[in-house]
Amino acid sequence: MMTPEIAIIGGSAAGLTAAINLKMRSPEKGLLVIRNVRNTVVPCGIPYIFGTMKAVEKNIIPDSMFEQMNIPILNQNVEDIDTDSKTITLQNGEQVCYSKLILATGSKPLLPQMPGIHLKNVHAIRKDPDYLEQLFTAFRQARNIVVVGGGFIGVEVTEQLARMDETPRQLTIVEALPHCLMQAVEEEFCRDAESQLRNAGITIKTGSRVEALEGDDSVKAVRLANGDVIEADLVLIGLGATPNIDLARQIGLECNARDGILVDEWMQTSGKDIFAAGDCASKFSPLTKQPSSVRLGSTACTEGMIAASNLFGLQRTTAGAVGAFATVVGSICIGSVGFTSHAAKQQGIEILTGAAAGPNRHPAHLPGGIPDMKAILHFRREDGVLVGGHIRGTDATAEIVNILAVATQAGLTAEQLATMQYATHPLLTASPSAYQIMMAAEQVVIQRGH
Amino acid sequence: MMTPEIAIIGGSAAGLTAAINLKMRSPEKGLLVIRNVRNTVVPCGIPYIFGTMKAVEKNIIPDSMFEQMNIPILNQNVEDIDTDSKTITLQNGEQVCYSKLILATGSKPLLPQMPGIHLKNVHAIRKDPDYLEQLFTAFRQARNIVVVGGGFIGVEVTEQLARMDETPRQLTIVEALPHCLMQAVEEEFCRDAESQLRNAGITIKTGSRVEALEGDDSVKAVRLANGDVIEADLVLIGLGATPNIDLARQIGLECNARDGILVDEWMQTSGKDIFAAGDCASKFSPLTKQPSSVRLGSTACTEGMIAASNLFGLQRTTAGAVGAFATVVGSICIGSVGFTSHAAKQQGIEILTGAAAGPNRHPAHLPGGIPDMKAILHFRREDGVLVGGHIRGTDATAEIVNILAVATQAGLTAEQLATMQYATHPLLTASPSAYQIMMAAEQVVIQRGH
Repeated sequence: MMTPEIAIIGGSAAGLTAAINLKMRSPEKGLLVIRNVRNTVVPCGIPYIFGTMKAVEKNIIPDSMFEQMNIPILNQNVEDIDTDSKTITLQNGEQVCYSKLILATGSKPLLPQMPGIHLKNVHAIRKDPDYLEQLFTAFRQARNIVVVGGGFIGVEVTEQLARMDETPRQLTIVEALPHCLMQAVEEEFCRDAESQLRNAGITIKTGSRVEALEGDDSVKAVRLANGDVIEADLVLIGLGATPNIDLARQIGLECNARDGILVDEWMQTSGKDIFAAGDCASKFSPLTKQPSSVRLGSTACTEGMIAASNLFGLQRTTAGAVGAFATVVGSICIGSVGFTSHAAKQQGIEILTGAAAGPNRHPAHLPGGIPDMKAILHFRREDGVLVGGHIRGTDATAEIVNILAVATQAGLTAEQLATMQYATHPLLTASPSAYQIMMAAEQVVIQRGH
Repeated sequence: MMTPEIAIIGGSAAGLTAAINLKMRSPEKGLLVIRNVRNTVVPCGIPYIFGTMKAVEKNIIPDSMFEQMNIPILNQNVEDIDTDSKTITLQNGEQVCYSKLILATGSKPLLPQMPGIHLKNVHAIRKDPDYLEQLFTAFRQARNIVVVGGGFIGVEVTEQLARMDETPRQLTIVEALPHCLMQAVEEEFCRDAESQLRNAGITIKTGSRVEALEGDDSVKAVRLANGDVIEADLVLIGLGATPNIDLARQIGLECNARDGILVDEWMQTSGKDIFAAGDCASKFSPLTKQPSSVRLGSTACTEGMIAASNLFGLQRTTAGAVGAFATVVGSICIGSVGFTSHAAKQQGIEILTGAAAGPNRHPAHLPGGIPDMKAILHFRREDGVLVGGHIRGTDATAEIVNILAVATQAGLTAEQLATMQYATHPLLTASPSAYQIMMAAEQVVIQRGH
């Protein structure tokens, strides 16, 4: 019987961040992380295994890192939890007795109930290094790969498959919405990303629903609702993730399939001394206060920290899942926080939009310069508060999104963003007189008559 | 007699940003920019003329850009202004009658009253392309260059001189403070910058005061207070800038040599319908509310926008000059906003400091990755508000500083910065579980017992 004071079930973003945070704030307390994989993969790094890294092992967080931080990890499946006696039973029969428990069981790939979904060579992305090894081998052997779903995971994996090796392959993305990435990214930038994908030889079928996967034993084709049939010897389902609530449901915590384990703003579940964090936990949007389907590593890490802080006395609350993204597609980087104009319309939020494009260096011809880094900012008409920010640029795109992420989370207005001072430098940024965030915000200030 | 409704005297950061802003908000109003140079140089780009760009013309903002925006520019010196009749007299005798006037006369290099300051080949950085051509020629001919002042301008110019051409040169920086860049940059990062400079073959003499420049006609040597004599056939004075208040003083505006033209928070001077913006205008620190010597392009641009917005009705105020910087020294980038620990001590502000270092990619071996991107954050002990942020990293450093610049200007706390969600991506940023700003802020949260 192991008796750590704190048990954490799940060894990915939320679980390990919680563990690290506990080591920072309560190094004297006993701690055990239980995970059901042999090693922790960097979740957002998975697509880059297949192209840039070319090895699963390169995308693994070495356990030595956790040993250095004095964080013990046990690789075991959890069989059951007795929440009254606070006892976890592992698959090998061993028991772990805890005082406080964090569930960070993550998510599972969303697999639609369609004909052929159980055929051989129909895959999804799982955060398990052994599974990813098999998937990598399957990718290499395949000649006609169809990726179902053109969100971040589908786009990133396909973009990397195009640069996997010298073998010629037919790569196709099938997306139900009018554009890839459209749930998070402003439409103009979705089009830019699609151009990049096409330039890499990828076929994109948007506005297309998959009706069935065909084949006898192994998948042979993908049939679309419009009757088109795409030859396929490997299908990757990239339709997002659904909270992994199997264990939570088994032990009687309040949860549902869409939202996950229901938590309050302190990340407390309905179970005594049980917290949940990350993809498995319910979330709300700070902008609408409604349930949110944002499931990101960054959100998981924040929630892991919040849960860790609250175990022995409630310290801090979550402000909601804001959804700040960035990615690289071919030669461009795009990133977003908050609403697209499309999403704002769907939510019934009236917005004013400012957009500014220009060089990311000053003068523009300096090394690393592009002529058309662009910012598109959406502010609520009612009060001028930033509710959506979209950037297309180069390497610094994610950090520019983070300027907007902080601004969104702090509730800043167009008036504030337009006259803030930003650090600028010829070799690193746009000119201070044409800084894109400032210029886009100023357009909205003028629209608001200020 | 020209009769633009709005006259702007000065064609650099503040003047041109004001002009661009007026074209955005009041395109129907007549406008004239009067400048005393043949072309506008990118001010912060000047150091990069000598190394990276290798031509003054490459650092000029082409007038065609202003023509496209329908901004007329007149290259003339201003002789006088009659503020009663609102008439500007130019050096060529022509007159310009205005309704509203913005003074954006900038700054002049600070030249200490020391023996030898008027010798030939003693130079400073002036924002005049013709002067910069002469300076570039002089740099090329020189073999022993001494730069007096190890602030941003001194460090950036010397770093670029080391990569100017194949001619061997002795390059020396003399700085009175214990470290180069110390007024803005945290001491640890000053040391890093100095290492980079030494690696490039530059000699650094810190804690050294210059007593005299020696020579008969042309400068031959620099004599230090400790008696050391450094051979020099060119001396560059890089001791910062002083507000150019010649014209303002002549026409009787309230001003003083240290602070410049005194303006209120609306950027109004003591003269009727006369505003001032940029290096020539007085500033205050948003952190101390005391006069500030921060004179940056970014501050000038913000002030130009504020002045432009207020000409025909007071619309917006300045929140003060915050001082957000970034630069490149050899292979590292460093950037800062707000106080260093040294400056906070001098101001009597008690701070709590968090620091976090780690890769800027995840996993760390991805392209562009370094193992030790570092954030040092200072929060006011009293209320946990961010009052200083310092970053050492790569290309995205300036934009990371801008996350902190926005946070400082919005008055965010360690508690807020620690649990914000930041956009992260393997190829673009640190890991979400080890994002440096988050980790440094969390240390302070824990120090504060939260």
